[in-house]
Amino acid sequence: MTGAGQLAIVGLGPGGPAHRTRAAEDAVRAAEVVVGYRSYLDQCADLTGPHQVQVPGGMGAEQERAVDAVHAAADGHRVALVSSGDAGIYGMASLALCTVAGLVAERRPAVHLVPGVTAATAAGALLGAPLARDFACLTLSDILAPWAAVEARVRAVAAADLVLALYNPRSASRPWQLARAVQVLLEHRRPDTPVGLVTDAGRHGERVELATLAGLDPGEVGMRTVVIVGSSATSRVGDWLVTARELAVPG
Amino acid sequence: MTGAGQLAIVGLGPGGPAHRTRAAEDAVRAAEVVVGYRSYLDQCADLTGPHQVQVPGGMGAEQERAVDAVHAAADGHRVALVSSGDAGIYGMASLALCTVAGLVAERRPAVHLVPGVTAATAAGALLGAPLARDFACLTLSDILAPWAAVEARVRAVAAADLVLALYNPRSASRPWQLARAVQVLLEHRRPDTPVGLVTDAGRHGERVELATLAGLDPGEVGMRTVVIVGSSATSRVGDWLVTARELAVPG
Repeated sequence: MTGAGQLAIVGLGPGGPAHRTRAAEDAVRAAEVVVGYRSYLDQCADLTGPHQVQVPGGMGAEQERAVDAVHAAADGHRVALVSSGDAGIYGMASLALCTVAGLVAERRPAVHLVPGVTAATAAGALLGAPLARDFACLTLSDILAPWAAVEARVRAVAAADLVLALYNPRSASRPWQLARAVQVLLEHRRPDTPVGLVTDAGRHGERVELATLAGLDPGEVGMRTVVIVGSSATSRVGDWLVTARELAVPG
Repeated sequence: MTGAGQLAIVGLGPGGPAHRTRAAEDAVRAAEVVVGYRSYLDQCADLTGPHQVQVPGGMGAEQERAVDAVHAAADGHRVALVSSGDAGIYGMASLALCTVAGLVAERRPAVHLVPGVTAATAAGALLGAPLARDFACLTLSDILAPWAAVEARVRAVAAADLVLALYNPRSASRPWQLARAVQVLLEHRRPDTPVGLVTDAGRHGERVELATLAGLDPGEVGMRTVVIVGSSATSRVGDWLVTARELAVPG
């Protein structure tokens, strides 16, 4: 096939079909080729069928997946590149867009980005309303960054008293970073600052736990956990974490 | 009716049905009473019918809407309290949860929070991938906060070189705050820092504009605009705004 095709970069939301958007479902169903990390293909298996080509990839092979998806679209196919959550937030969108921009103009496919419910939002809804006023999303992954740069951002957010949603807080190859981030946060926040841990939101085995900053056990945290650290305006309200929408005069 | 009912706090996503989740649609369809600001009721009018009681409210009357919804649920009804975007992010969730917690135990309804695609995510997808690595969401509204506290947060995020999504950047009663926030950002960021303006994402009249920090015209910005300000790692890639996923060594 020749002539540029179409590329949809799709966020599937946090887990199963319940938190997927109609636009995401339509984009996957309409695709001739579906590209994604294997567990993301599983996440939309109810939308795909034998008439579609599925191109799975390994966890680390993100650049390859972006290239596979973009080149299939450049060859004239209708392609969906799928990510969990929102593809624009620690997902495949930036890689894919840069790959498209690198093509000669006549091979560039039409690109359509489909937003999804990102992990921080899904975790927030399971915890209550911790993101009610002002927050930051940071990743603790130091694969694409020196740890010093990651830590500098944690420190800045801690000092600014923003609620913090931590993505990729811990994995087998990154065992100590979360404990270090907690130390940094404790330089600026009270030991009893409420923390919520949400693992596998919207999936089998979903787990929601409440802790305090000083009491957080990194052993409870895995690759698929989102850690939400409250600000000085976050408190336990019944079983929920709620951040007040009012801001006090800065001290 | 007596005995506590059910309260679903529902995020409808940014605009029409395309970016709504199935869980949000199910929650609205299943409700006997649907409570929300009038334009949010319009946003889910395709899901509601004459068998349901609809309780609209004015823009400012958020506390009343929360009380209406919670009390209807406490009286035994199945209630959906709807917000645009995600109800937990500058939405109705925190007010509603605090209202529930204030009830005597036997009147407290079962509460279910349904996450939605929030405005920053929807705007990001229309712009490219500006939120690809680490960002903050701030509101410029100083209705529930002294401006000094709002400005302090803008300054902290500017200094931390985080991508920034600004909610409620400007309204008729808050005409100068955005220009002041831009001044603060310019103390820390280059004049040519890319900025994206998205108005009415997913709605009729959707508008996407690119600007620079120094060139931003506050007159282009309204109540339903989300302003995304890039970091030093954000650049124009073709027609898109993309933030690199790599972080440099802090300077």
